[in-house]
Amino acid sequence: MILSKISLRSDDQAALRTCAHVMADAARDVILPLFRSGLVSDNKDAGGFDPVTEADRAAEQAMRAVLADLRPADGILGEEFGISDGTSGLQWVLDPIDGTRGFISGTPTWGVLISVRDAGGPLYGMIDQPYIGERFEGGFGCAEMIGPLGPRALATKTTTELADATILTTFPEVGALQDGAGFHDVAGRCKLTRYGMDCYGYALLAAGQVDLVIEAGLSAYDIQAPIAVIKAAGGIVTDWRGGPAHDGGRALAAANGTLHARALEILVKY
Amino acid sequence: MILSKISLRSDDQAALRTCAHVMADAARDVILPLFRSGLVSDNKDAGGFDPVTEADRAAEQAMRAVLADLRPADGILGEEFGISDGTSGLQWVLDPIDGTRGFISGTPTWGVLISVRDAGGPLYGMIDQPYIGERFEGGFGCAEMIGPLGPRALATKTTTELADATILTTFPEVGALQDGAGFHDVAGRCKLTRYGMDCYGYALLAAGQVDLVIEAGLSAYDIQAPIAVIKAAGGIVTDWRGGPAHDGGRALAAANGTLHARALEILVKY
Repeated sequence: MILSKISLRSDDQAALRTCAHVMADAARDVILPLFRSGLVSDNKDAGGFDPVTEADRAAEQAMRAVLADLRPADGILGEEFGISDGTSGLQWVLDPIDGTRGFISGTPTWGVLISVRDAGGPLYGMIDQPYIGERFEGGFGCAEMIGPLGPRALATKTTTELADATILTTFPEVGALQDGAGFHDVAGRCKLTRYGMDCYGYALLAAGQVDLVIEAGLSAYDIQAPIAVIKAAGGIVTDWRGGPAHDGGRALAAANGTLHARALEILVKY
Repeated sequence: MILSKISLRSDDQAALRTCAHVMADAARDVILPLFRSGLVSDNKDAGGFDPVTEADRAAEQAMRAVLADLRPADGILGEEFGISDGTSGLQWVLDPIDGTRGFISGTPTWGVLISVRDAGGPLYGMIDQPYIGERFEGGFGCAEMIGPLGPRALATKTTTELADATILTTFPEVGALQDGAGFHDVAGRCKLTRYGMDCYGYALLAAGQVDLVIEAGLSAYDIQAPIAVIKAAGGIVTDWRGGPAHDGGRALAAANGTLHARALEILVKY
């Protein structure tokens, strides 16, 4: 599909944000009844009912129905149903359940990822964790979250040295062998390494709780919403060469430019 | 202190449960304002205000104040303030914030651990996660949780083969080198390995979401509440030799006896 560089008025931006909230509400209503339902399997090839696949597909359908209603001219890239062309020059990028292995383990680390992009990359993103009741959004002048403690502004940390940093990734092997080696080269210089947070790790970075998230083997729909949220909160996300990460692959998300440069200096060797 | 084997009437048990809920409420009120407060450090030796230490100590003091009021004859073992003798033969075992490294990273995987034991070990336990609003309890005939989706009975999974099991631990290195080798010998035979859940992993096991949690280097106050909750939900927790785990050290928590035996057969070699 053809994406353009789009100039949006503030009422356009408000309409896009409203649409994202309606989509996240719709996804939540479909997914939550299946979370911890006791029937979950991660084997998409096995016969029979698979709640995580079911929840994934139903949530994307629910979000697509909202778009058909509110934003029929926009394009869509969804994890489950692929690309739908649009005419507006904007594209919604959707991952109905990011972190399916977290989902099937009952951990509240999965999320609904919603973003909207133009030819230049993501303009706005949302990370929604329905079980906890937390929603993180960034872009169009907003960088905020709502959760159990009420609304809060998102702002990344000011840590500038790896020796003071907390770093996250989901699985210790990270991706291919070379990916794991790069991650651990950085992590070995950090103060604290934590695992297992899925997309929630990016939300923690935007919320000023951790300093670095490094991952590999990503798809575009895994990373576009986190990029928008983190950028709005003051952070920076690139690939391991310093280029755009919004098409997926390897991602380096950092709380600020100084810390990003420290980690990138190491990762470029991998 | 001297613990006895205690025979409790049902109204004694109800009073102990009520006391545990009052303690958890008191701890929550102290801890939540300091969670994600932006001032957190994990360096207990550094000068100045340290919110996680502050929250840890204030929460234990709040729980001890409840006990002084409601259960003055019971003994206490607390992570922060050690042992206080009692005369009833019962001892409360308290970890005000289990998972301080999770706490300082903003992950909702830490918990308030409360249990009550007699000479034979833990009789009742509670794992409380105040940010999510989840409380898991087991013992005295109860095995239940309350959370964002309402109340639910706790019941462990029926998985009997390691090849079908999801296994958790918090850090990939687990403990000493030999501890890590034992864990990975079991994990390598499992379907899915996840990290980073702190005490929340034991709650997920009791709630029928995962099959195994294996840890090492534990203190008594880290494991007594999980033991009681998991046992009440149908699971089993021992050390890596099949003996009691309630004094700490290495723990093997399994969804049922068959799966426990499969993992123990491997861990006894380490």
